Amino acid sequence: MLMRNKLIAEFIGTLWLVLGGCGSAVLAAGFPDVGIGLLGVSLAFGLTVLTMAYAIGHISGCHLNPAVTLGLWSSGRMPTCEVFPYIISQVLGGIAGAAILYLIASGQAGFDVSAGFASNGYAEHSPGGYSLQAALTTEVVMTFMFLFIILGATHERAPAAMAPLAIGMALTLIHLISIPVTNTSVNPARSTGVALFVGDWAVKQLWLFWVAPIAGAMAAGFLYRCFGQSSANSN
Amino acid sequence: MLMRNKLIAEFIGTLWLVLGGCGSAVLAAGFPDVGIGLLGVSLAFGLTVLTMAYAIGHISGCHLNPAVTLGLWSSGRMPTCEVFPYIISQVLGGIAGAAILYLIASGQAGFDVSAGFASNGYAEHSPGGYSLQAALTTEVVMTFMFLFIILGATHERAPAAMAPLAIGMALTLIHLISIPVTNTSVNPARSTGVALFVGDWAVKQLWLFWVAPIAGAMAAGFLYRCFGQSSANSN
Amino acid sequence: MLMRNKLIAEFIGTLWLVLGGCGSAVLAAGFPDVGIGLLGVSLAFGLTVLTMAYAIGHISGCHLNPAVTLGLWSSGRMPTCEVFPYIISQVLGGIAGAAILYLIASGQAGFDVSAGFASNGYAEHSPGGYSLQAALTTEVVMTFMFLFIILGATHERAPAAMAPLAIGMALTLIHLISIPVTNTSVNPARSTGVALFVGDWAVKQLWLFWVAPIAGAMAAGFLYRCFGQSSANSN
Amino acid sequence: MLMRNKLIAEFIGTLWLVLGGCGSAVLAAGFPDVGIGLLGVSLAFGLTVLTMAYAIGHISGCHLNPAVTLGLWSSGRMPTCEVFPYIISQVLGGIAGAAILYLIASGQAGFDVSAGFASNGYAEHSPGGYSLQAALTTEVVMTFMFLFIILGATHERAPAAMAPLAIGMALTLIHLISIPVTNTSVNPARSTGVALFVGDWAVKQLWLFWVAPIAGAMAAGFLYRCFGQSSANSN
Repeated sequence: MLMRNKLIAEFIGTLWLVLGGCGSAVLAAGFPDVGIGLLGVSLAFGLTVLTMAYAIGHISGCHLNPAVTLGLWSSGRMPTCEVFPYIISQVLGGIAGAAILYLIASGQAGFDVSAGFASNGYAEHSPGGYSLQAALTTEVVMTFMFLFIILGATHERAPAAMAPLAIGMALTLIHLISIPVTNTSVNPARSTGVALFVGDWAVKQLWLFWVAPIAGAMAAGFLYRCFGQSSANSN
Repeated sequence: MLMRNKLIAEFIGTLWLVLGGCGSAVLAAGFPDVGIGLLGVSLAFGLTVLTMAYAIGHISGCHLNPAVTLGLWSSGRMPTCEVFPYIISQVLGGIAGAAILYLIASGQAGFDVSAGFASNGYAEHSPGGYSLQAALTTEVVMTFMFLFIILGATHERAPAAMAPLAIGMALTLIHLISIPVTNTSVNPARSTGVALFVGDWAVKQLWLFWVAPIAGAMAAGFLYRCFGQSSANSN
Repeated sequence: MLMRNKLIAEFIGTLWLVLGGCGSAVLAAGFPDVGIGLLGVSLAFGLTVLTMAYAIGHISGCHLNPAVTLGLWSSGRMPTCEVFPYIISQVLGGIAGAAILYLIASGQAGFDVSAGFASNGYAEHSPGGYSLQAALTTEVVMTFMFLFIILGATHERAPAAMAPLAIGMALTLIHLISIPVTNTSVNPARSTGVALFVGDWAVKQLWLFWVAPIAGAMAAGFLYRCFGQSSANSN
Repeated sequence: MLMRNKLIAEFIGTLWLVLGGCGSAVLAAGFPDVGIGLLGVSLAFGLTVLTMAYAIGHISGCHLNPAVTLGLWSSGRMPTCEVFPYIISQVLGGIAGAAILYLIASGQAGFDVSAGFASNGYAEHSPGGYSLQAALTTEVVMTFMFLFIILGATHERAPAAMAPLAIGMALTLIHLISIPVTNTSVNPARSTGVALFVGDWAVKQLWLFWVAPIAGAMAAGFLYRCFGQSSANSN
């Protein structure tokens, strides 16, 4: 597979994750009377990954997330030379998705990007007012579990055709739990894309949504490497 | 496979898409206290495609949508001579689905087709009051992504048995994002079916829901053709 | 496979359909503030079939519904001698499921079975006040489409492992559309099970929920038989 | 497969079941205006099992539940020597999941663990005020059906790749029905994990959520053993 195609796939896929996930939150979550709520937004985020994993999984592996790329790298499943290009494509895709969403959302009278634009935050910018410590714990643990599931579901003994379902639904589940805490990131590219349009506090708090997801993901990658080796030995 | 059977399958399938998707919107979305809301309608649209793709995918490919047929044609996967008959069957199926829905809905006292009947619209007829430009952007981008997912999920390297799930859930996701903007079309047959019963503004605004989905779908088809060729070269 | 096991499987499966589908409606749909609504009930009905189709599909085929059994028989896929025993098991299972639900529901102070107990009805007993004609149309068309999907998704060219998903989600979709019209039956065993506990109007209106689903199902079976023959000829 | 890896997998999986299922209930179910409600919580519980079954099914079988372990043992599919270690790992995992949830939830001002913390209960501690008898019936029947589905979906004639979907969605369905009755357990490890943090009534009522699920699960295991033997004879 050409590296160029992989990077285009990661760009379009991450664009879709931000346009679909954040888009459902900005446009439809609070629609009067019949809005989709946090349940609909959780489903939307998961479905961006599920749909893209079936569409581009065979091209790039469908990471769409710097934390996923680094978690796979730390588990030994991703060549070092591809890590940086993947992350660049993901961040650019995230920004492009946010730009399209901005274009659409600003077509409604009264649109105000500073109302949040689906940005991630903690303390006074947490949807439910959760502390910095709760936000850190949440993002580390959720990304750890996300990578644990990704590494298991894509293991050679798991049914390969079902991995996109498992991984997409893992992201839905993570959002069902943690939107009230941080608006749910577990993905630095998703956080960066929308934060650049909000500026101000969203950019100031952005560090946490790089540090915590990457820490959780790499911890899962290292653990799984040990885990997998002993399981290999036992056969 | 007989052409006659393909056209019957596309007719019944598109009938189901309109009866199921628009039907859930008209009959159940705003039911007092326990209505299914935009989340339920989004799920319903996706499930019409998911269920039909498993039922008739092996007969006609289950397009149910002129934009899908033209997108596949532009990618080189659809013979030219079948394009026009498919589109005719889809539009007739869409009208038949809307007719059955009209028959059912008018069995409730106080039914008023001019309340919308799940028609697509922009500006003053957008559910959330979104501008013509926002509506155009949304329909072009959403149909582009829909075809990108269809083309990827039905690629020979993707797991064939899962494509109906991926494609159905892509339509659910598209509705989760964009019902507030245009009531979501991405499908000229679906728009035409209900617009004919509403008449008036719904017919006047119908042009956009032919032009935008087809433009987005054909752009995806052309892009994927290039994309696919370079990926083929790399093997 | 022993006939006895098939009949036990149909009994337990139909018990589950009524306990799960009607149970979610009676116990959880209108729970204050956080009730699951018609969307949750629709999902529950579909999941009873999805889960049982994976659990007992290899034993009895998982019909759980006299209309399904007769539809398959009319399409030529069900031996005549098994039709009557299957239907008896399904009706007994439906009654048993309703009995367990009654036992649980009556453990709450203020429970009143005459409030509906998830019975099907038309005219003044339609949830949304839909007429007899609308109810008849709905039940015939919905069961026709249900069988059309079942026959297609279990066709030898469709991916067998996915049929339970397609069929379960078809039932969810049918409920998303039509609960407001008839409370959705498409299944005489489900209607009979709960109607016996409500008595009165629920029993008086029960004829429609035998006649309409069976008519729709058998029409689909006959159509598919013609449809399938011509498709066989074309290979 | 090393026993150590199996026990780590059961520990992490059960941690996820409690953190994800109970976490969605505590953090997101009642979020103002856009909360996920009982439908979202039901989906979350099911997705914890679905995601983990794809991730660790090939390691430990993904029981995550002492009742499942004992049900499989009573059906003859689980070696006796592994039963006790599995149950210990599950209970420890449940407590660890509840501890992480406590850490996160207490990061919001006004958090009060005695408000319930997603504990299971009956009579005055049933969400809907259901009696002890209704609670017992519910937990026995729901766990019986859960095991019946697990045993069927993992049977050698059922499609192995789909069992995690069927089993996860069975747990979602069980929650859609029975949260109002007992807050839904069917899993002694889940009940124990959160009850230890609530103390008081939650610990006093804990006996029911060990006795009833295990009774229902073992009944299903014994029944399926007979059922399966006669079906084997008929081939």
